[in-house]
Amino acid sequence: MKDIQRKKIDFSRINAVAQGILIGLIAGTIVSVFRLLISHGLLLVQWYFRQANHHVWLLGVWILISVLLTLLIGRWIKQTPEIKGSGIPQVEGQLMGEVEYQWWPVLWKKFFGGVLAIGSGLFLGREGPSIQLGATVGQGFAASRKISGNKRRILIASGASAGLSAAFNAPIASSLFILEEVYHNFSTMVWITALASAIAADFVSTFFFGLTPVLHITYVHALPLAQYGWLILLGLLLGLFGRLYQLVVLRVSSWYHKFKWLPDQYNSLIAFLLLIPVGLFLPQILGGGNQLIVSIGGQAPGIIVLLIVFVVRFVYSMMAYGTGLPGGIFLPILTLGAVLGALFGQILVAMHLASANLVPIFTITAMAGYFAGISKAPFTSILLITEMVGTLHHLMPLAVVSLIAYLTVDVLGGTPVYAAMLENSLHKAHQGSSLPVTQLEFPVFENAIMDGKQIRDIEWPDGTLLVEIKRGERVIVPHGDTVIHLGDTLLLNVPQSKLSHIRHKMKNLTGE
Amino acid sequence: MKDIQRKKIDFSRINAVAQGILIGLIAGTIVSVFRLLISHGLLLVQWYFRQANHHVWLLGVWILISVLLTLLIGRWIKQTPEIKGSGIPQVEGQLMGEVEYQWWPVLWKKFFGGVLAIGSGLFLGREGPSIQLGATVGQGFAASRKISGNKRRILIASGASAGLSAAFNAPIASSLFILEEVYHNFSTMVWITALASAIAADFVSTFFFGLTPVLHITYVHALPLAQYGWLILLGLLLGLFGRLYQLVVLRVSSWYHKFKWLPDQYNSLIAFLLLIPVGLFLPQILGGGNQLIVSIGGQAPGIIVLLIVFVVRFVYSMMAYGTGLPGGIFLPILTLGAVLGALFGQILVAMHLASANLVPIFTITAMAGYFAGISKAPFTSILLITEMVGTLHHLMPLAVVSLIAYLTVDVLGGTPVYAAMLENSLHKAHQGSSLPVTQLEFPVFENAIMDGKQIRDIEWPDGTLLVEIKRGERVIVPHGDTVIHLGDTLLLNVPQSKLSHIRHKMKNLTGE
Repeated sequence: MKDIQRKKIDFSRINAVAQGILIGLIAGTIVSVFRLLISHGLLLVQWYFRQANHHVWLLGVWILISVLLTLLIGRWIKQTPEIKGSGIPQVEGQLMGEVEYQWWPVLWKKFFGGVLAIGSGLFLGREGPSIQLGATVGQGFAASRKISGNKRRILIASGASAGLSAAFNAPIASSLFILEEVYHNFSTMVWITALASAIAADFVSTFFFGLTPVLHITYVHALPLAQYGWLILLGLLLGLFGRLYQLVVLRVSSWYHKFKWLPDQYNSLIAFLLLIPVGLFLPQILGGGNQLIVSIGGQAPGIIVLLIVFVVRFVYSMMAYGTGLPGGIFLPILTLGAVLGALFGQILVAMHLASANLVPIFTITAMAGYFAGISKAPFTSILLITEMVGTLHHLMPLAVVSLIAYLTVDVLGGTPVYAAMLENSLHKAHQGSSLPVTQLEFPVFENAIMDGKQIRDIEWPDGTLLVEIKRGERVIVPHGDTVIHLGDTLLLNVPQSKLSHIRHKMKNLTGE
Repeated sequence: MKDIQRKKIDFSRINAVAQGILIGLIAGTIVSVFRLLISHGLLLVQWYFRQANHHVWLLGVWILISVLLTLLIGRWIKQTPEIKGSGIPQVEGQLMGEVEYQWWPVLWKKFFGGVLAIGSGLFLGREGPSIQLGATVGQGFAASRKISGNKRRILIASGASAGLSAAFNAPIASSLFILEEVYHNFSTMVWITALASAIAADFVSTFFFGLTPVLHITYVHALPLAQYGWLILLGLLLGLFGRLYQLVVLRVSSWYHKFKWLPDQYNSLIAFLLLIPVGLFLPQILGGGNQLIVSIGGQAPGIIVLLIVFVVRFVYSMMAYGTGLPGGIFLPILTLGAVLGALFGQILVAMHLASANLVPIFTITAMAGYFAGISKAPFTSILLITEMVGTLHHLMPLAVVSLIAYLTVDVLGGTPVYAAMLENSLHKAHQGSSLPVTQLEFPVFENAIMDGKQIRDIEWPDGTLLVEIKRGERVIVPHGDTVIHLGDTLLLNVPQSKLSHIRHKMKNLTGE
């Protein structure tokens, strides 16, 4: 009996891995083609603007193309708003059970919308869309096999990790990103399936793009321990700029909203038109930024140039993201980080505080630090940059900078940017769906308002019901006079429609 | 109000990180000294046996030393049985709330016991003991500050990750190991604290031992995609041998038990005495195995030599572990894996199926695969070997071999070895403590016996109480006639004293 039992289990796990691999192969192929089209699109646009320097009438054609692109993608955005932006918040919402959408329209509209928007030279990244493309492949697979519930979630997560893996050739960090930032959980089944999927996708994309890491920066020096002080300062600065980035990026789409004469879905027209001066004068900095990172890593430009690049890329990447075009902020963030790091290094060099051969280390670590702060996923950042740059020499500096940038953003009150974007979009949707009640757990922290209070004296959010209190190993059935203690975990029934509102209120009460 | 709230939170997270760093520095120092003493002890023993080849009377002295060591460490083991063996199961049990012990006696006895046992040349590893040393530092820190509950758990976990990090100079993989294999959880607070602690410990150990990776194998070739077929075969073989390892290692201490004339705590006498022939004829393979791995990685010996080394190390490492001496199996497993990989490579070379310059890749990937299979922590394995070897070139081969070895062990019914060891030791202890009732969740899987049955028809394990059923987003209050469905999650009240027994029974019922 027991033996039969066992054999069945084994097949279920192998089965999951096999499904993961299949999804990885499909997602890997789709994302590789996506990536290929984008990089060719970018080369075409750069060539186009070089020509336009000599033939001014080409700018007229660009304006025409801008209008057409805006109308086309704007229509898709209007029909299928889930394709907007990065895609990571949508996948996150889907895995948390807060968002639900049809997979097929999202898949093809995100694909073509992403190719057009990102390949146009706008400062958008391919990684968020790749994650969403992968996730919809997983979702479609689940739909075709009528798989639902937890198993479906695993397939969606696997697809997401495959998508990122194919976009960046970083299978380990990709699986981890999905677990750390998107899935928020950690079970062997998810772990293994996501990893298998990511590896399969990486194989496919290796066939397309070869074995060279995406951000290959050849640099073999290790940072002397005596120089680690600078990393702390760098981490602090990245944290500050990271928080600034968060503040702007979460507001920028509402600024567009002020152009009353332009329907929201056509905001991209502004971005396309404003791209013209950059295309004419700085064509080499167009796009997500991977080429730029590699070139800065190889030979950092002077301070003034770096400053200009930073300001232009900061403003333009916000502008591009704010339009709602299907494109991500991941790679643009890494690019900004690299520019900041190089700037930091060049300033130290100019002040004779560090030698010039250390600049690439600051460039590399700043990428990780900036992303760690903004996304608040430090572990993933470290591994991701390690895999993308392709060397382990910088693991310790990466870890130090990432940790400090993360803590700095945390002190400044920053929350993980993708979760904040999700919350934003849920607020906007005013979802009043009639989904059934769900249960959430809230730990009571040291600084909780409710610590030491009786249940009847606490202002619970509307519509919630306290089901039970876990205290250490015990479970307490709550009464009006039960006193809440620090360290308790509260289990609440919460109406699905008010999820984010209640989460927010409970955060205040429990002091998280 | 909200602002004040926020500021408090920030300090709590920074506070945790600061505590993590402090624990990391202390644990890093202790483990570095531990490591230093062991490596000097090993050199001394190797020198001693070389002398004994010329002066046979030295063997008499060795026997005398063996008796003294056996009596001394045996006494410690008797007084403080928690210092036995690897230490990882104990830490795991502590974090799961199933084991509790005094930190100070464990700290100093494990330290000196470990130095004597591992430094003697027995085939034991330093990493498990390092984890436990680190964990007791965290525990001691918590005791001195009167920190309890979840916060104490975080400090213990941080110490554990610091210990491993200092033992292997692998901060990233160490934090991950603690989360994947020991803590089984994944909250930002633990994550960050463990990482900070691991980094601090790595800094300290870098001061002691320099920046060179522990298993530095210089090898820059990447495996051609066409050769990946061999990796699948290698993964399968490693899975088979891994399962064999599990079967033996979980039984070996009971075999010792059959020597009725020798009290259990003095079993080590046998191991010390049987070490003599190895010391005389193969002194270079003594110890945990890191030197051996580096030498095989540089230049693999012939097939016959590798076969002999494998058999000797397999038998002797079992023998050493079975004595209950304070020493781990982690590094010995890696060593066996490296030998198997080199053997696999050399056989392929002899059969003209692969070129000789690929042997190091098989050696490196087999380490990861063997450990991934036995510990069932594939993700950690991949990162650990990557960090320990110090190059990213092998990430994909590592991932493929680890995943396949993991799945093979899984199909063969193997469970994670450290968890199995913990269960073993809990069975032995026949713990009948009066700890209060705890709650456990059991998902109902596809192949569950209980799927489709009414609650009253199911043979629940004695002493359990089904508290609620989670079905999708709903929570059902169970009655006798409620039918259990695939996909449900059951919440059970379970008496602490029967935890592992009930877990086992429920596994059969729910089909996990």
